[in-house]
Amino acid sequence: MEKFTIKSLGENKIDSPLVHRTHKMFAGDGFTNDNERILKNNAYADPSDIKFEGFEKTGAREKIYFNPATTTAAIVTCGGICPGINDVIRGIVMDLHYWYEVNNIIGIRFGYSGLAKDPSTPPIKLTPEMVTDIHDLGGTILGSSRGCPPEPEIVDSLERMGVDILFCIGGDGTLRGAHDISDEIAKRGAKISVIGIPKTIDNDVGLVYRSFGFQTAVAEAKRVINCAHVEAKCAENGVGLVKLMGRDAGFIAASATMASGDVNYCLIPEVTFPLYGEDGLIEHLKKRLDKRGHAVIAVAEGAGTELIGESGERDASGNLLHKDIGVFLKAEVKKAFEESGRKISIKYIDPSYIIRSVPASSDDSIFCANLARAGVHAAMAGKTDMLVGYWHGDFTHIPLEATEERKKRIVPNQGLWRGVLTMTGQPVNWGAE
Amino acid sequence: MEKFTIKSLGENKIDSPLVHRTHKMFAGDGFTNDNERILKNNAYADPSDIKFEGFEKTGAREKIYFNPATTTAAIVTCGGICPGINDVIRGIVMDLHYWYEVNNIIGIRFGYSGLAKDPSTPPIKLTPEMVTDIHDLGGTILGSSRGCPPEPEIVDSLERMGVDILFCIGGDGTLRGAHDISDEIAKRGAKISVIGIPKTIDNDVGLVYRSFGFQTAVAEAKRVINCAHVEAKCAENGVGLVKLMGRDAGFIAASATMASGDVNYCLIPEVTFPLYGEDGLIEHLKKRLDKRGHAVIAVAEGAGTELIGESGERDASGNLLHKDIGVFLKAEVKKAFEESGRKISIKYIDPSYIIRSVPASSDDSIFCANLARAGVHAAMAGKTDMLVGYWHGDFTHIPLEATEERKKRIVPNQGLWRGVLTMTGQPVNWGAE
Amino acid sequence: MEKFTIKSLGENKIDSPLVHRTHKMFAGDGFTNDNERILKNNAYADPSDIKFEGFEKTGAREKIYFNPATTTAAIVTCGGICPGINDVIRGIVMDLHYWYEVNNIIGIRFGYSGLAKDPSTPPIKLTPEMVTDIHDLGGTILGSSRGCPPEPEIVDSLERMGVDILFCIGGDGTLRGAHDISDEIAKRGAKISVIGIPKTIDNDVGLVYRSFGFQTAVAEAKRVINCAHVEAKCAENGVGLVKLMGRDAGFIAASATMASGDVNYCLIPEVTFPLYGEDGLIEHLKKRLDKRGHAVIAVAEGAGTELIGESGERDASGNLLHKDIGVFLKAEVKKAFEESGRKISIKYIDPSYIIRSVPASSDDSIFCANLARAGVHAAMAGKTDMLVGYWHGDFTHIPLEATEERKKRIVPNQGLWRGVLTMTGQPVNWGAE
Amino acid sequence: MEKFTIKSLGENKIDSPLVHRTHKMFAGDGFTNDNERILKNNAYADPSDIKFEGFEKTGAREKIYFNPATTTAAIVTCGGICPGINDVIRGIVMDLHYWYEVNNIIGIRFGYSGLAKDPSTPPIKLTPEMVTDIHDLGGTILGSSRGCPPEPEIVDSLERMGVDILFCIGGDGTLRGAHDISDEIAKRGAKISVIGIPKTIDNDVGLVYRSFGFQTAVAEAKRVINCAHVEAKCAENGVGLVKLMGRDAGFIAASATMASGDVNYCLIPEVTFPLYGEDGLIEHLKKRLDKRGHAVIAVAEGAGTELIGESGERDASGNLLHKDIGVFLKAEVKKAFEESGRKISIKYIDPSYIIRSVPASSDDSIFCANLARAGVHAAMAGKTDMLVGYWHGDFTHIPLEATEERKKRIVPNQGLWRGVLTMTGQPVNWGAE
Repeated sequence: MEKFTIKSLGENKIDSPLVHRTHKMFAGDGFTNDNERILKNNAYADPSDIKFEGFEKTGAREKIYFNPATTTAAIVTCGGICPGINDVIRGIVMDLHYWYEVNNIIGIRFGYSGLAKDPSTPPIKLTPEMVTDIHDLGGTILGSSRGCPPEPEIVDSLERMGVDILFCIGGDGTLRGAHDISDEIAKRGAKISVIGIPKTIDNDVGLVYRSFGFQTAVAEAKRVINCAHVEAKCAENGVGLVKLMGRDAGFIAASATMASGDVNYCLIPEVTFPLYGEDGLIEHLKKRLDKRGHAVIAVAEGAGTELIGESGERDASGNLLHKDIGVFLKAEVKKAFEESGRKISIKYIDPSYIIRSVPASSDDSIFCANLARAGVHAAMAGKTDMLVGYWHGDFTHIPLEATEERKKRIVPNQGLWRGVLTMTGQPVNWGAE
Repeated sequence: MEKFTIKSLGENKIDSPLVHRTHKMFAGDGFTNDNERILKNNAYADPSDIKFEGFEKTGAREKIYFNPATTTAAIVTCGGICPGINDVIRGIVMDLHYWYEVNNIIGIRFGYSGLAKDPSTPPIKLTPEMVTDIHDLGGTILGSSRGCPPEPEIVDSLERMGVDILFCIGGDGTLRGAHDISDEIAKRGAKISVIGIPKTIDNDVGLVYRSFGFQTAVAEAKRVINCAHVEAKCAENGVGLVKLMGRDAGFIAASATMASGDVNYCLIPEVTFPLYGEDGLIEHLKKRLDKRGHAVIAVAEGAGTELIGESGERDASGNLLHKDIGVFLKAEVKKAFEESGRKISIKYIDPSYIIRSVPASSDDSIFCANLARAGVHAAMAGKTDMLVGYWHGDFTHIPLEATEERKKRIVPNQGLWRGVLTMTGQPVNWGAE
Repeated sequence: MEKFTIKSLGENKIDSPLVHRTHKMFAGDGFTNDNERILKNNAYADPSDIKFEGFEKTGAREKIYFNPATTTAAIVTCGGICPGINDVIRGIVMDLHYWYEVNNIIGIRFGYSGLAKDPSTPPIKLTPEMVTDIHDLGGTILGSSRGCPPEPEIVDSLERMGVDILFCIGGDGTLRGAHDISDEIAKRGAKISVIGIPKTIDNDVGLVYRSFGFQTAVAEAKRVINCAHVEAKCAENGVGLVKLMGRDAGFIAASATMASGDVNYCLIPEVTFPLYGEDGLIEHLKKRLDKRGHAVIAVAEGAGTELIGESGERDASGNLLHKDIGVFLKAEVKKAFEESGRKISIKYIDPSYIIRSVPASSDDSIFCANLARAGVHAAMAGKTDMLVGYWHGDFTHIPLEATEERKKRIVPNQGLWRGVLTMTGQPVNWGAE
Repeated sequence: MEKFTIKSLGENKIDSPLVHRTHKMFAGDGFTNDNERILKNNAYADPSDIKFEGFEKTGAREKIYFNPATTTAAIVTCGGICPGINDVIRGIVMDLHYWYEVNNIIGIRFGYSGLAKDPSTPPIKLTPEMVTDIHDLGGTILGSSRGCPPEPEIVDSLERMGVDILFCIGGDGTLRGAHDISDEIAKRGAKISVIGIPKTIDNDVGLVYRSFGFQTAVAEAKRVINCAHVEAKCAENGVGLVKLMGRDAGFIAASATMASGDVNYCLIPEVTFPLYGEDGLIEHLKKRLDKRGHAVIAVAEGAGTELIGESGERDASGNLLHKDIGVFLKAEVKKAFEESGRKISIKYIDPSYIIRSVPASSDDSIFCANLARAGVHAAMAGKTDMLVGYWHGDFTHIPLEATEERKKRIVPNQGLWRGVLTMTGQPVNWGAE
């Protein structure tokens, strides 16, 4: 039995408006069929290795489930902000309007809390005119928040507002919430499609090769690393220390290290590192400073937890909060150098709000437009309890449940991390036990 | 018989230096075997559809062909400049030096002409120190040129200089040249590896999903389109007309249109369009100006050739030169409006040198570093007459001959072009006969 | 008798709203008196050299002429676009609203043509909400045009619309027009204040040290010069040729040369240069290419007119159009090199629309806000037939007539041009006869 | 007796090399005489108000003091980094070399500590080739540090190295140091010129209208404020709090507020503000959030010291360190809101290293080149114990002692602060008692 089956609200009986309006463009293979798949694993040494496991392919369906004339769609954005959210909102509104002629589109304010019984801010109507220039702005025009009211309350609100389709743009917690909302909808036998658009600046959603906003974040992180490099070079024994996003996965730190070429130590959650002792960071740093006079360290916020422990607190979405590795490293390194009578000048930079609040880069804008279009096609075709993925260059449908089980992490003996080791020259044996 | 077989200079008998230096990192699946493949077509409706045709996978091999201690590598950059060339040069030098301990690396000046019998500028020695910051610079530190001396002359030069590996960074003409050089080498029974790194700002190399510099070019093109949009809105019946690169394929124009959201007409070589008549561009433009007061047109340099014909001239690489579609359009539109007594204010922008000369974006930098590493691993393993490709998220080896036969073009009824049609609202039936 | 006397519509009898609202801030020297002056010439060798000639100083007056409750202000933007126009519009609206509580503010569309008897586009009402974010946009939200209907027609329109104050944002032609409009108003005995805000990307308005948008333009021009430099270095005997704005004054070319450091020849209207012969540009270029292999030329559009002559055409504002010096230089240099059997590769860039359509830089934004505030204070105090100047760090009032007589030009033996000569190393004796 | 007299090392008997090389350019008023002055106060209501007090004017002198063939110049950069230091270094080297043909130029490493008896890093020789591209880099290629060895030790080093001219690029502490070094030199009867180039990102040096790097810093600060604005708008009752440089003067915070237009409260050292009570910041913030839902606060690091007291610590240059007003404000506001049962979401950004480490903007680059040239002319003419100032659009010479007595501060009832009050709408009576 196939694993990645997408749930459907019912039989698709309505002709897509695209059939008539854009016939030539959709002639031949213009529409996608539900049985089309993208292979999960496309690498093989022997053809018989290939497992026929694949993801449903996105695209316009010839028959759809919802009647555009009577459909109401809602968009909600949750969690921390990330470059590109406004691009996704824009894309959903534009595609619903221009491709499907859906005109009732509402924007939920400030995350799931806007779907509470009595939200502090009411939803707004979204139109193409309103969203036409929002991709030039950072953040989300709808506002966001963490946390989630009880699912029954949310589904009550959706039914009260007559919502047929709910687009949930958010990360781990949001997608878990979306799945629970789908369950509640199913329990009631309601016909509301729930479509997730994964938003994780850390790029750590399982089965999703690339998340929107990640490339933009890496570009901004590179800028900041450059600042740290300048600071480091301008002081005797100068060290620039930059803390980057990455609670459980170090993709931003590792990719910014690759892009920058100026980082000497890249520290990520997936690869433990000793701080003290012969092979520890501090000892290496001493040698580096003796030899070159300066150093740059990029540390993901979730790195080194084994050194400092977790703080025990959780944010409103339930994510565990780590103690601040940046502050810890700065203090420990400084202390160790002072104790051994060595001069050091550490400049610590914590740029997270600066990185996540910029508008999407040109390539992320395109990516967001494609994600949005995939989500709209899926929703109109009555699919639900799924998210829009990206795999090997194609957009895919993934059951919300499937992604929860799998988290994406950097694999130390593969391409990205090897690239980092070349770029930095840091010890190759850190993280191996 | 498999189609995408890569030629090899001989048996690989030497242990890779990586075996000893970085053992832990390469334990398990750390090395790549020659029989590993990336499926060419990973989409299927029925598992039995799948054709087992794939590309060799890049990666470090456990045994290599060249003895690092005695190996000399050369790098040559040809054709028009493109963001990221310096990143590729940097990556090749860094990886040869740090992974393989190859220390004889030379940079050929000003394209293949630097491999002539008597080059006007002699090659330079390349070291990690020299290249460490070059990724912050646009262009190529080696200089470039079009055209190619006779292959025997080039191979004579390579033999005279004792070159074992030649990295050729360039586009169509360069890769054709690289293949011919490989043939000449094979004819002589020489043991010189020729590795192509495809450079095409137009992103039109067959079997290669993404070319370096393309994303950066799109980002710059978006900036320019924004300028055209501002100019258009500031005049009564203002029209901003931007000519973008794209001789045979409209990827830059289409992608910049997607990223910008401000383009009303995107014209590309793959989709013909009528200029006059009921459904022609001029008539549409009149309606748009009546309704909205301004318009933006992005035109690829190779669009509308059926309207203006080719100039008959060829550049030094043998590419056919088209007449200037931008100048032509500006004149025709202006004339048509004046003849019908309508006001129009067209601002024409031709930004090509501005777009191609910027440094690589952060994401292109990473991409270039990966391309370079793939090329270095392939070369050290004695592979030849190949280029480094990128397919469905993996880097691949492709025979130079195979890519020549296939050119990548925008397919009108697929994702990118449909996105453009949504973004612009331009006629969907252009290009269909 | 003093030369720079500002005309006034009548006696100021009304207390400024600022008197009551912001008393503390305006205590002491908070208000400006009409007799306060800024010295025109503040350099001296002997105190007795000083001529007591000065400009009226801008600032809030304690008594004003117009009753805010019944005042209608209009803003018109004319001529080519320039970074910062929207900042000026924003500032005028904000200051009228928040400082003076004037609520009737209208925006004339598409330049003086919007004040014609029967404008093709009617004016719009401007409010703080509408303009709050416009400083992030290039161009002018009001649109612009060249040319001017007859003054009586314009004054008819102003009277019909009940306009009390007209802010004219524009260059030479616009300010000449504003003066003529003032004359027509005076002839009729009407009480309409006309305030000019000089807009000249070329920075060539007399008695005005700095024009808004100029610094932004120089920064963009520097970016383009950098592209030309990259192109030049990447080709054998590569020459990057950039044409910059500057019809009669070379401030942009000279300043961008200073900022960039990469220009080898800076050609401006104020300094003639020979093209041929021993001391001509071409001969120098040959020597430079022999020695260094590449060169960058920045040429102002009005340079070298003695070499090519004027085209005889005028634009809609009546400015003489020069033939294209960039195209001419490219052709002449190429021909000369080919005739002497020398290789050359010239890349010609004409970036004007790209430079002038960007949003204002941070410093230009501040400058524009200050210009706007000065204009608003002057207008409310009933001053007319004047422009807002900037002189030795202070904002000033200047009679429109006075600026017409004086054009600002680069003086070859002073600071800016000497800086250029150091930066470029070009011949110091060009331009001297 | 005039106040701003510049000390001289002796009689100028040597013809400037400029006399011969660039005669035409210096004909007429090409050289500057020592008696030329720039008026300190150029505003007047009555001509008899004018006080004839002025600053010596910079510029090339016809006779110089030092013999270029035997002159050694040294450059030292001290204190925190600031955009443009490399531009100044570049300019000094270029002008010494190309205008005066001085070839012995040395760069002192890591501030005054590089002039200690036994510096940890020896000086380097500086040449035009070395500095040609350094203006594209942030920081200082020489490195910097705070603090200063005893003056006799420094003068010993200068004499040992045969230094004739010392350029000191730095802030308050550095310039005090330069003055003390000058005194020590005078005491010994040595003939060493000491020229200060004021470097203060805060723009707070007395008698100096503009410091290099300040405009660039404002532009970066504006970027960060924009991020804070996005964060604030994306949360319910979102507050973006940005701490900016400005120990004793709020120019960066005020100017960035002007440039951005998004700040609601600008807090600076010169204007005290109550935190609690009816007219306090917290009460205002509550009203603002009730009305608009979000707010942005820009606070200079030296604001609110009366609220938190100084920490008692000093940095290595002897500057008093304030407690962190940003951290304090965040905590107090949060506490006050929580205590009154109100929701608030504060995002605190402390971007200082990111702001100060970027390369100079185009306009700052030009400004730095002019500062450098002024310093070189002054030094070659044997002037000493002075700094290069900028006053009313001209560059000036100022005795080091004079600037120490005067610090530049924002004057609340003048232009800049009034602009801030309009932009923000914050209480106009804060700071007045």
